[in-house]
Amino acid sequence: MNIELITTGSELLLGLVANTHLQFLARELAPLGLRIVRHTTVGDDPAALRAVIGEALARADLLLITGGLGPTSDDRTRDVVAELLRRPLHLDTQVAEQIRERFRKRGREMPEQNLVQAMVPEGARVLPNPNGTAPGLAIEDGDKRIFLLPGPPREMEPMFRESVVPLLPRGPATPCRTYKVAGLPESAVEQKVAAALGGLADVELGYCARPGEVEVRIIGASLAEADARIRAALGEDIFGTDAERLEEVVVRMLAAAQRTVVTAESCTGGFIAHRLTNVSGASAVFLNGWIAYSNAAKMRDLGVRDETLKQHGAVSEPVARQMAEGARARSGADYALSATGIAGPTGGTPDKPVGLVFIGLATPTRTLAQRWQFSFDRETFKWMVSQTALDLLRRELLCNCHS
Amino acid sequence: MNIELITTGSELLLGLVANTHLQFLARELAPLGLRIVRHTTVGDDPAALRAVIGEALARADLLLITGGLGPTSDDRTRDVVAELLRRPLHLDTQVAEQIRERFRKRGREMPEQNLVQAMVPEGARVLPNPNGTAPGLAIEDGDKRIFLLPGPPREMEPMFRESVVPLLPRGPATPCRTYKVAGLPESAVEQKVAAALGGLADVELGYCARPGEVEVRIIGASLAEADARIRAALGEDIFGTDAERLEEVVVRMLAAAQRTVVTAESCTGGFIAHRLTNVSGASAVFLNGWIAYSNAAKMRDLGVRDETLKQHGAVSEPVARQMAEGARARSGADYALSATGIAGPTGGTPDKPVGLVFIGLATPTRTLAQRWQFSFDRETFKWMVSQTALDLLRRELLCNCHS
Repeated sequence: MNIELITTGSELLLGLVANTHLQFLARELAPLGLRIVRHTTVGDDPAALRAVIGEALARADLLLITGGLGPTSDDRTRDVVAELLRRPLHLDTQVAEQIRERFRKRGREMPEQNLVQAMVPEGARVLPNPNGTAPGLAIEDGDKRIFLLPGPPREMEPMFRESVVPLLPRGPATPCRTYKVAGLPESAVEQKVAAALGGLADVELGYCARPGEVEVRIIGASLAEADARIRAALGEDIFGTDAERLEEVVVRMLAAAQRTVVTAESCTGGFIAHRLTNVSGASAVFLNGWIAYSNAAKMRDLGVRDETLKQHGAVSEPVARQMAEGARARSGADYALSATGIAGPTGGTPDKPVGLVFIGLATPTRTLAQRWQFSFDRETFKWMVSQTALDLLRRELLCNCHS
Repeated sequence: MNIELITTGSELLLGLVANTHLQFLARELAPLGLRIVRHTTVGDDPAALRAVIGEALARADLLLITGGLGPTSDDRTRDVVAELLRRPLHLDTQVAEQIRERFRKRGREMPEQNLVQAMVPEGARVLPNPNGTAPGLAIEDGDKRIFLLPGPPREMEPMFRESVVPLLPRGPATPCRTYKVAGLPESAVEQKVAAALGGLADVELGYCARPGEVEVRIIGASLAEADARIRAALGEDIFGTDAERLEEVVVRMLAAAQRTVVTAESCTGGFIAHRLTNVSGASAVFLNGWIAYSNAAKMRDLGVRDETLKQHGAVSEPVARQMAEGARARSGADYALSATGIAGPTGGTPDKPVGLVFIGLATPTRTLAQRWQFSFDRETFKWMVSQTALDLLRRELLCNCHS
């Protein structure tokens, strides 16, 4: 089945907002065995809209269109689709009443202009929008199915899950798995996987490298055999599968081991703690964190010694150790992660260039410290440091589980 | 000029990675007066690739294509473009040597397969890639210009800025400005702006609402007049223009006033500090932060009183006040922001539902506390709380500037 996605909106083409619809919809469709084969983004100009939708209607069996259902003059999707399919629009009084009711609840009069949103092409099914005024529309046209969905992700995503998925056909199951790997460069991952899978037919292989993380994706019939070989080749470098995030894995491992963690951050500015607390249930394992940006805070809150700062500087292995040990001692947690480095773009010296960082981990039995040099912009640097720190803790927890 | 973008890669259509190329390129092209009118994403399948690139070549004056320049079998863009333009490929020995050299530097032998990346279509210009092995390609074909760029953003983005921008034509300047507004719902912003701009021709207006933030975009000739009217209508609710972020504005205002800030976070888990420390130069104004997730940490590190926790609970106005006041007193900072709430999805009660949050701000002269109820998923909740807290501090700093 030929599935296409059209996202409309001049704000997308101007780069004012990130276009997240493809990623969301692709991930929702995958478990149904459905794959988008083409995605087109076009602005609010009616002629361009007509061209793009017309071409896609000629090719696609299933067409998803987002955006352009609002009440303002730049919202033209409904009109263009009705015109292309030669289905006259009529006012749906029930939808009109729902929109009026939404305004009434917020104590406001509905501007007449909003009635445009209650116009429905002949034979279309209305998809309720609990998070906004513009309803979605589902149209069957011969063998083709067309879905019109609102542009804001907060409205589109729940509508897709609740009202579109039940109407979709199921495709042939395409077994697919993604392995998430930390601590190895992409080329090394590729080499190991290629050697492991040698001679195995029917497996489509893909790689995706991000800072501090490599994804290996396999699609195909021989999934079980490939799975065994990949796990044997990569072992503990695999931290998770599919959509699993490193911070989720760490929180889950800590919870299973009934262990707690605290953070003592300088250059990451709270980002390690932020990632851990993004995981629902983190409060069972994450006690607290310190963001000791200034030297004064490092001494006052974490017990870093003045003489160590003077002798080695704030960005040094002894300071990373003292931060982790101080955080662990003060909190009573089982583990403490620390990071001190130079995020840049300024603040580097020949001895201690931008990107230098020391990562510490205090455990019940020892303190580890690692020196790394990362060359990235400020935010990617913070990501890399947090990724390396969380992976250090994950590997430590793996060791403990084994013993 | 008709400008189109094609992003290739099955990982994009599978939703495994976010497609950020459109946003990056649109923002880079805007100051040159250039606008992308259509963006298509297609997978690695050569037939689909040929169809999409062929159609775009028929329409576009300037065509940007990303991805598919790598050494593996799923990298087909170079071949397809050479075939469509009827330009035979030849081995560029200089490029081949550069790739060999890159491998040599890392102490590795170059796999022969990598020589594919040194194949150049007749008449094409090679664009150097300092961040990877695949060079880019620039082709002039009659009046058309085609650019082939690598897929990874870390390689594509610097190459675009350094090697593509100097080769691009300049379009007619299209004056464009975006106002970023906090503290007002989208409908209220729209109402005020519509009233203010009534009767002003030649201005194209657009809105984009995100949690805690509304963007108003104006494009057109009457920019100066529109600017004056919008500023009069929205006043201090405008926190910035164009790509400016709220945390940048806050850090800039603190630096200008030579004031310092600390954070005392519970439910936001370090996210407020993370946003502040994303700003280069934050260390001049941000001293440190506490992430007091557990009640023990709230008492030990911030001096929140046991009896207050028992009487009012951790999510309460008195605790938000004590967190802010304790953080300010312990650090000696001028300002302290605090947040305590229920991020969810679990942990809510009928009295204190998920999404309830108290935000505190201690200043040299007083302590403010606000109660909010936000209904979002966990990460959007953290965003909304951080946005509200940073805007509270911004408005406080505005007051002080006025006095």
